[in-house]
Amino acid sequence: MARLKVIKSKQFFEEGTVEHLAQVPSGGNRPEVDWKKAKLIGKAVDRVDGYDKVSGTAEFTFDVHLPQMAHARILRSPHPHAQIKRIRTSRAEALPGVLAVITRENTPKTPWYGDTFIFDPHSRYIGDEVACVAAETEEIAEEALRLIEVKYEILPFVTDPVKAAEGTIPPFHEAGHLLHGEAEEYQRGDIDAGFAGADVIVEDSFTTQVAVHNTMEPHCSVVNWEGNKLRVWDSTQGIYHVRDQLAEFFKLPSSNVQVTTRYMGGGFGSKLRAGKHTVIAALLSRRIGRPVRIALDRREQNLSAGNRPDSIQRLKIGAKSDGTLTAMSFSALGSSGAYSSSARCFWPFMTMYKCENVSVEQRSAFTNLGKGEPFRAPGHPQGTFALDSILDELAEKIGMDPLDLRLKNYAEIDQVSGQPYTSKKLREAYKQGARRFGWREKFRPPGSDKGPLKRGVGLASQIWWGGGGPPAGVTVKLNRDGSVSAIAGSQDLGTGTCTFIAQVVAEALEIPVQRVEVTLGKTAVGPYCPSSGGSVTAPSVAPAAHDAAMQVRDTLIEGAAAILETPKEELLYRDGTISVGGNSGRRLTIGEVIGEMREQTIVRTGLRAANPEGYMIQTFGVQFAEVEVDTMTGKVRVIRVVAAHDVGRTLNRKLLENQFEGGIIMGISLALLEERIVDEYTGKVLTTNLHDYKLPTVLDTPQIETIVVDNHDTTANSLGVKGVGEPPIIPTAGAIANAVYNAIGVRIRSLPITPDRVLTALQA
Amino acid sequence: MARLKVIKSKQFFEEGTVEHLAQVPSGGNRPEVDWKKAKLIGKAVDRVDGYDKVSGTAEFTFDVHLPQMAHARILRSPHPHAQIKRIRTSRAEALPGVLAVITRENTPKTPWYGDTFIFDPHSRYIGDEVACVAAETEEIAEEALRLIEVKYEILPFVTDPVKAAEGTIPPFHEAGHLLHGEAEEYQRGDIDAGFAGADVIVEDSFTTQVAVHNTMEPHCSVVNWEGNKLRVWDSTQGIYHVRDQLAEFFKLPSSNVQVTTRYMGGGFGSKLRAGKHTVIAALLSRRIGRPVRIALDRREQNLSAGNRPDSIQRLKIGAKSDGTLTAMSFSALGSSGAYSSSARCFWPFMTMYKCENVSVEQRSAFTNLGKGEPFRAPGHPQGTFALDSILDELAEKIGMDPLDLRLKNYAEIDQVSGQPYTSKKLREAYKQGARRFGWREKFRPPGSDKGPLKRGVGLASQIWWGGGGPPAGVTVKLNRDGSVSAIAGSQDLGTGTCTFIAQVVAEALEIPVQRVEVTLGKTAVGPYCPSSGGSVTAPSVAPAAHDAAMQVRDTLIEGAAAILETPKEELLYRDGTISVGGNSGRRLTIGEVIGEMREQTIVRTGLRAANPEGYMIQTFGVQFAEVEVDTMTGKVRVIRVVAAHDVGRTLNRKLLENQFEGGIIMGISLALLEERIVDEYTGKVLTTNLHDYKLPTVLDTPQIETIVVDNHDTTANSLGVKGVGEPPIIPTAGAIANAVYNAIGVRIRSLPITPDRVLTALQA
Repeated sequence: MARLKVIKSKQFFEEGTVEHLAQVPSGGNRPEVDWKKAKLIGKAVDRVDGYDKVSGTAEFTFDVHLPQMAHARILRSPHPHAQIKRIRTSRAEALPGVLAVITRENTPKTPWYGDTFIFDPHSRYIGDEVACVAAETEEIAEEALRLIEVKYEILPFVTDPVKAAEGTIPPFHEAGHLLHGEAEEYQRGDIDAGFAGADVIVEDSFTTQVAVHNTMEPHCSVVNWEGNKLRVWDSTQGIYHVRDQLAEFFKLPSSNVQVTTRYMGGGFGSKLRAGKHTVIAALLSRRIGRPVRIALDRREQNLSAGNRPDSIQRLKIGAKSDGTLTAMSFSALGSSGAYSSSARCFWPFMTMYKCENVSVEQRSAFTNLGKGEPFRAPGHPQGTFALDSILDELAEKIGMDPLDLRLKNYAEIDQVSGQPYTSKKLREAYKQGARRFGWREKFRPPGSDKGPLKRGVGLASQIWWGGGGPPAGVTVKLNRDGSVSAIAGSQDLGTGTCTFIAQVVAEALEIPVQRVEVTLGKTAVGPYCPSSGGSVTAPSVAPAAHDAAMQVRDTLIEGAAAILETPKEELLYRDGTISVGGNSGRRLTIGEVIGEMREQTIVRTGLRAANPEGYMIQTFGVQFAEVEVDTMTGKVRVIRVVAAHDVGRTLNRKLLENQFEGGIIMGISLALLEERIVDEYTGKVLTTNLHDYKLPTVLDTPQIETIVVDNHDTTANSLGVKGVGEPPIIPTAGAIANAVYNAIGVRIRSLPITPDRVLTALQA
Repeated sequence: MARLKVIKSKQFFEEGTVEHLAQVPSGGNRPEVDWKKAKLIGKAVDRVDGYDKVSGTAEFTFDVHLPQMAHARILRSPHPHAQIKRIRTSRAEALPGVLAVITRENTPKTPWYGDTFIFDPHSRYIGDEVACVAAETEEIAEEALRLIEVKYEILPFVTDPVKAAEGTIPPFHEAGHLLHGEAEEYQRGDIDAGFAGADVIVEDSFTTQVAVHNTMEPHCSVVNWEGNKLRVWDSTQGIYHVRDQLAEFFKLPSSNVQVTTRYMGGGFGSKLRAGKHTVIAALLSRRIGRPVRIALDRREQNLSAGNRPDSIQRLKIGAKSDGTLTAMSFSALGSSGAYSSSARCFWPFMTMYKCENVSVEQRSAFTNLGKGEPFRAPGHPQGTFALDSILDELAEKIGMDPLDLRLKNYAEIDQVSGQPYTSKKLREAYKQGARRFGWREKFRPPGSDKGPLKRGVGLASQIWWGGGGPPAGVTVKLNRDGSVSAIAGSQDLGTGTCTFIAQVVAEALEIPVQRVEVTLGKTAVGPYCPSSGGSVTAPSVAPAAHDAAMQVRDTLIEGAAAILETPKEELLYRDGTISVGGNSGRRLTIGEVIGEMREQTIVRTGLRAANPEGYMIQTFGVQFAEVEVDTMTGKVRVIRVVAAHDVGRTLNRKLLENQFEGGIIMGISLALLEERIVDEYTGKVLTTNLHDYKLPTVLDTPQIETIVVDNHDTTANSLGVKGVGEPPIIPTAGAIANAVYNAIGVRIRSLPITPDRVLTALQA
């Protein structure tokens, strides 16, 4: 049905990661589990590493200190666009305590970010890497940076994506002014006929800001060469991806690169690929024969470590007077920054609601600013903000309740592929969410409140992949005392991967969760798992852990069958013991079975099975927001958010609420606070610290209520699990924007909704 | 045939380890490999970790330094035997920099070494643990030890095993004066009839000294609690054994204890079980909430870390005049030291030569000295020295060449069980060794040389288990680029475990050995492998590695068969590529196959298969030594040793020669140099440093020639491998003692053969 005209690539975050999402056959299909009997899965189990974090024992990459470790600082270009003509490092090298200075002149010319190099003579933004100093201390390295003399040839620059796309300066990438050299496009149906058949047409533009990830733990790498082996401690969301990038850069067998990420202080998409700083640390370590640590500071993170690209979105929708959508057209422009990256805002527009005639086009222009990187549900919060805003405009125009408009255009099947979903319980989510929020009672005509403090409500919907898939593997090793070590090549960004693996394994073996010890974040020992992005971790890794534990369980039952000389079908496995015919018969503990088998450990590697063919796996949700706008100050206060989602089976109620609260707070922040501000005359970023760049505190946090509709989507995978990392952030800004309109009767079409914008709009 | 009367236990080193040697069914039986095509196995492949060691990059436990790590020193009893009446620690605790002092008064009363405790109020030897101080530096801790006031009640003590066995002081263990309370005994046939039927009877006594392991890296543990998880870096031969001992002591799930041994500077049996210092470090770490390091110094190692017990052996053998043995009787006494341990000297006597009538008895008496521990082939060098000495006495008496006497009494089957050997190529070893050495030409009547420098030759035989067995597991993870990570819960004592695993995996997958990266020494991630003692490592772990790699290879071939739509039987796997019908057909690389399978890594865990039932697996050998005795100074110089052994298939010629040279040098040292000397009046050890305790240098090292007879013992296991760690040390001292007799015509029946003993003997 849908016609895919031009989609440059189906990948929705960076190269190398998409492959991990491929939905392909693999081993270990497990029968459905009787989840009513679950003792751990779905429960509010404490984090298994809670003590380590609370006590400060947890070793983050920032904490890694190796003997003889040197510290490095990066010299970054002070010009938005320049050619480096000459670099003199002799004064820096002479500073006592300096161990080495590397530049483009003494490092290999190996490509990085496509058509550019680690130290590129063509410097494309303020913050671009020019040189790096390793020294005995960070302070000496910092001081040495000032002694490096660089002669730049200043070039014209551009920071505005519109001007960039127009080609106001000569292109600085082979592709030209635009990422990929052209727009990404998609069409289905007959867009003109669709609009011709519409009773009502609404058309408007929306803009969103650049936001910076600002993870609690900044980007950091500690690197050490051991002969021709490269050991890397990295704050990364993808240990395997970093491993493979470094192996390729240094032309090493991938097993010679060992990447370790034990604890991590957040990534949100900005740590999916190896940073230049990681490669630079490795180059320096090889030069000086010592471990090298590079930790970005907050300013560097705000300049160079990625961001959520901005967007200018033009939306046009046509509908029958009963609300049925007849045509949807979308055109957007964003800024990629200085290197290749983009955020596709059009996915929700293409897939969220039922419509036969859809046209989509998005361009990303190169600007002389820090590059974009995937950021928690790339493109989706921006696209949803615009989509759900214009839907509310339509609803008002035809006099329809916004919730009814969504229900009217409910998509029963995937709008692009025409495939059915493995499951979709969004209708139930709308119902439960509206009831909890009191939508029918609270939704009033815009600007109903009389005083200066005006309340309003709004809603927005969510769609996101979240199905995960193979390949992913987990190894489970059962000890004689019934305790377990589980090993996976995944990583825990702070989201609770360790905890849910322990739960899944403990559930399958019917042992206490405290008896499962999980080792993650080590490429040297863990079976391959995907990078933790795209909400793939739980739906990919948990079924693999389940498979491994069930293999161990099967082995135990087979062992017991031999010992008890009883067919295994007649044996009952319960709470880590195996018995004949329930309470009456003979009973063996795990230890006794392993003991009789004369083994010390039972080791099995479980694999994530293939996703079902012919289905789409998606997560869905709706959020309802209530706000209070102070029309005197323009300040918006979010009072309450009710989130009702279909994210498959809940693995851990605490972790799930953590994700929802974190995502919604981040969504509020995107709606009201965060913005990277650039001075267009100098190309300087004005918000490089957490004073100038506003992040929310607990005072900005409203009451958040999370509803997950009961959905064990065992068509999707053996555990019925979908991802929950990204869904919560997607609809928040849209719901808030609609609530602000509902409060004051004036629509703000630009994020963030600052007091300034509110007052300006009220005056207009 | 043989009658086992009383053997207290079949274990030949410490409890918990013997279990690992159980020969039981397990998975992964592999067909025999065509070894003629081997490219790596058997070759002189460089150590894969050679660079790390030569460059100093290798991190031994001694090198582990954790943030906030405290240093601890142990207060040891200065009295050979005492009751501790009172301990005052307040002055020590007041010393600036002291973090904690622990004694029996503030630590749990959990048993250790059977009937005693970590800090036992009953102090049984000079060196017994009394208290321990943790401080900011090792120096402060050492100083604080002097401020601890201990009031001892002095008790009578005994250092001589004869007096100890006679009960000259009251017993200080529940069992009484003797280990196990009684002798260990064994008999077969009719010993009286055997002697009655003899034409000749020879009877004599032999003594051997106490030797101390004196590993290059002393015993060391770094311990850290992370909540209720115990992380331990330990210089140990058995990471799993240490894990399980600590888990039991602290009542933790075994998965909560993670033991790591990355590189190790030798063990020789002294690091098979967790040391008291390891437990003490854990107790201190829990108390102060910081990591704690305890490293024994050379004095502590010589006092407390174990030794090869001494022996007084009485041997009597009867033979027909043609050399046929008719009866053999053995009685020995040794000293166990203050805690339970022994070295059984009687195994070679029971098993080396064919004889129907054998009687054996050995006692171990508790003395007030440091405890014994297994030491490279426990008991065997001592027993072989006595056995091969008395055989030479018999040979001379009946006018027979010593080699002919051994051949006359060649045991075709195991003398104890009556079972056949999986293979025994000792006859071939005798033949090749004698030819290389020139035995027939060099063997002359005793004392043939006329001048003061007299040369002589001697030989001795060797028998040792060395068959290994299950359980042992290795995980092999193949990456897309054809590189491999192998993971095993084994440890590399310096013997080359990492290297042979890499070789076996690379051989099976036909890839360069440089593409295999091995992770050992981590209980958290490695499948169970046995403690590295008893020469079990290679014959247990190598077949498991082979099994894992072959599973991966099979998976690749199956994957290729599906891709090429060709039955797998028609595919040819060669050099990491799979092709149809050799050169003509289509060809896939490992990466292409994994890529098409849409996997990132192929992970398989291989297991050591069961040993064959009804067979004994043993190693055999003979060593020929030539010595020159300076009859003016009494000094013995070893000129040449030719070793000819059947140790199964050679995995790596370099590692094998390392083992042989190391073992033979240690044997020379035992024969001529090493001896722990005790002052019996004070109970003090006089040799607690490497000045007083003599170890050989390169100047003491003769020409060593190693012959291994071609023997791929695939009846024993899939790789045909036997152990090679212990066989080389076993016959050296016996061969040297016989050579000394052959040189000077006077027999020295006590080790070490010092100049003093030689001169005394010459004078007698």
